Amino acid sequence: MGKLLREISIVGAGMSKFGAFPDKNSRDLWGEAFLNCLESIDKGIDTQSIEALYLGNYSSDLFEGQGHLAPMCAELAGLTPKPASRTENACASSGIALREGVIAIASGAFDIVCVGGVEKMTDLPTAGVTDTLASAADKIFEFYAGVTFPGLYAMMGTAHMAKYGTKKEDFMRVGIKNHKNGAFNPFAQMNQSVADIMKGKIAKAEKAGKPKPTWKDEIDFLTDLSANPYIAYPMRLFDCSLVTDGAACVILVAKDLAKKFTDTPINIAGTGQGSETFAIHDRSSLTSLRSARSAAEMAYKMAGVGPKDIQIAEVHDCFTIAEMVAMGDLGFWKPEEVAKAVKDGETALDGSKPLNTSGGLKSKGHPVGATGVAQAVEIFKQMRGQAEGNRQVKFDVECALTHNVGGSGGSCVVHVYKK
Amino acid sequence: MGKLLREISIVGAGMSKFGAFPDKNSRDLWGEAFLNCLESIDKGIDTQSIEALYLGNYSSDLFEGQGHLAPMCAELAGLTPKPASRTENACASSGIALREGVIAIASGAFDIVCVGGVEKMTDLPTAGVTDTLASAADKIFEFYAGVTFPGLYAMMGTAHMAKYGTKKEDFMRVGIKNHKNGAFNPFAQMNQSVADIMKGKIAKAEKAGKPKPTWKDEIDFLTDLSANPYIAYPMRLFDCSLVTDGAACVILVAKDLAKKFTDTPINIAGTGQGSETFAIHDRSSLTSLRSARSAAEMAYKMAGVGPKDIQIAEVHDCFTIAEMVAMGDLGFWKPEEVAKAVKDGETALDGSKPLNTSGGLKSKGHPVGATGVAQAVEIFKQMRGQAEGNRQVKFDVECALTHNVGGSGGSCVVHVYKK
Repeated sequence: MGKLLREISIVGAGMSKFGAFPDKNSRDLWGEAFLNCLESIDKGIDTQSIEALYLGNYSSDLFEGQGHLAPMCAELAGLTPKPASRTENACASSGIALREGVIAIASGAFDIVCVGGVEKMTDLPTAGVTDTLASAADKIFEFYAGVTFPGLYAMMGTAHMAKYGTKKEDFMRVGIKNHKNGAFNPFAQMNQSVADIMKGKIAKAEKAGKPKPTWKDEIDFLTDLSANPYIAYPMRLFDCSLVTDGAACVILVAKDLAKKFTDTPINIAGTGQGSETFAIHDRSSLTSLRSARSAAEMAYKMAGVGPKDIQIAEVHDCFTIAEMVAMGDLGFWKPEEVAKAVKDGETALDGSKPLNTSGGLKSKGHPVGATGVAQAVEIFKQMRGQAEGNRQVKFDVECALTHNVGGSGGSCVVHVYKK
Repeated sequence: MGKLLREISIVGAGMSKFGAFPDKNSRDLWGEAFLNCLESIDKGIDTQSIEALYLGNYSSDLFEGQGHLAPMCAELAGLTPKPASRTENACASSGIALREGVIAIASGAFDIVCVGGVEKMTDLPTAGVTDTLASAADKIFEFYAGVTFPGLYAMMGTAHMAKYGTKKEDFMRVGIKNHKNGAFNPFAQMNQSVADIMKGKIAKAEKAGKPKPTWKDEIDFLTDLSANPYIAYPMRLFDCSLVTDGAACVILVAKDLAKKFTDTPINIAGTGQGSETFAIHDRSSLTSLRSARSAAEMAYKMAGVGPKDIQIAEVHDCFTIAEMVAMGDLGFWKPEEVAKAVKDGETALDGSKPLNTSGGLKSKGHPVGATGVAQAVEIFKQMRGQAEGNRQVKFDVECALTHNVGGSGGSCVVHVYKK
């Protein structure tokens, strides 16, 4: 059919602080996000009216040695014996959990569901995190050949450079923009602009009596290999998103019930999901994801809108190149024009189509299984005019989008939101 | 609402051989199940008409170091770029994936979906398997205290003995029955009856010139500690299900399309899911699962039937005590009468309500993430009169049920099937 039989609204959305928290596990983070979400519901909610939990998590199995997270999180939220399911699609886990929640209400099974996402990543040493994340790529054909995620996205980066003339500075500008937005987000892990990070380093050098660095501007700073080394050419440290602990949560209801909870619900007008070949060597293109194009097409069609109607979007910037690929796949710009759009400030907070007002995965942080729902949290806040700090966009947002990618693009889920 | 807006049918069902296959990984097993399923579709199917994949898997993360299994399995089935999602709820992973597939069609999102389940368990050493499975229980409050799954179910066993006077021989009879059924199932891992296993051991002893064992019957054999040692009192070796590699697959369609694929579709008339406290010390009862009672109530209500209407069922016998707990939770017998029902042969192939005609997890095997869908495969075959060997029940099955438990009962999903 391709058309949902009921319409769905978000009536509450919240998240934990994103960061590295040695004293917190998945349980703590989830509890924090759930409570933050409840607080956002203007007219309150009886938690006993919540009928099910859909939870996204990538791999508490490998990160914490704990599987079967859904009933545990349901219990912490006081939802036992309600149904609780975990979805895993790598970094798209909770974006797809959100979609499962939407579909569940549309099916008639429930009227009110809770959707969460959680990941606790920082307990493992860096190599353990890299290996665990690499399990979301093709273990046999990629990982054993020595390729981990920075390498996979780096190949997309060089392909973009070769095909569209994209420069390393263009990647840097995506990171600079996202850090600038994240500096206004109190929930962000690195809520500092690149300019502030640069100034901090200069001040530190002066204080230590070392020679004062002579960086002219942010691009100059990010070009300095000592400040911004290569992780996998052309992706450098500031092109990579963060390793993060965090959780996020939204409450979905059948649209006809939404006004019971708030006068300003946000509707999910479209949902789409797609898949792509698992190993990137099987793809006809490295500068576009079939999963994303397919998911976007499905979501646009369901919502009855097109790329031009989208005023703001949270897109999956696990690496800066990923945001540029998304800009093409979502139809926002032609792939050959994305670098110019970033350079011209079109995607900045005061641009024609602000992307990642939250700071994105780059600055807000990327607790992989929480990212999809955290994107929806930002859209909920922006559309209601409630984004903290100076990151609230200056216009009324009637239509927005989230784009959440799993792995190197094996999975993608897109949602379109309307007032 | 609690009522699905569209009705759903199964038009094809198949599985891989269950067993220990050192030369096969998840990919191979899934491919085998998918092809076996396609072969079962009487009028054939154009695989390009399949719109999405819902895949159950417990922890390829820990078993194989491979996450993000859904797009990989979608690609192997030629479904890229269709949506592909993985569900994880421990041993109920694919039962819940089945439910997600049902809900997805009911929502209007799709008309035709594929549901799969897969687990590759035998690559790890026994201790690794035990630890991996234990991650489905409460790691902090149970595993670190030394309790793994045999211990958790053993506590349910002693509680059942204390409360209802259940004897160790009663547990044994569940295993004897299931092995007897599994002996007829060519897909079963241990397709041997306990009597045959006993005879084999006697023959082996004779051949080796050792003293001939004097076991009088199966109960006598299973009472011999040298033949059937305790794993966790009162659960002995033959009370435990198997460590298995395997996969299973079904094709679901909107009911109004079913006749395009077969003249004998099987309808999913009810689906229910529940959760229970994660750690068993938080439960008011150890002889009943709230998750199961809640899931059964939901499924019965949706199907408009009660326990008496169910003619056959596949229930989650990860341990023999689990089948007895299920018999009570599903309302088939009063908890205090389940031991007598087993003893009287009520649950045998020729009994009043045959349970686990496939051999169950005990004899067919328990590749945890594949088990839920494999239960549906057995029901599909039995209701169409196509169960291999002599395990086809002798009456026409109009109404059947599957009961799939995750962990120590943290999750449970129940489906009711009608012709």
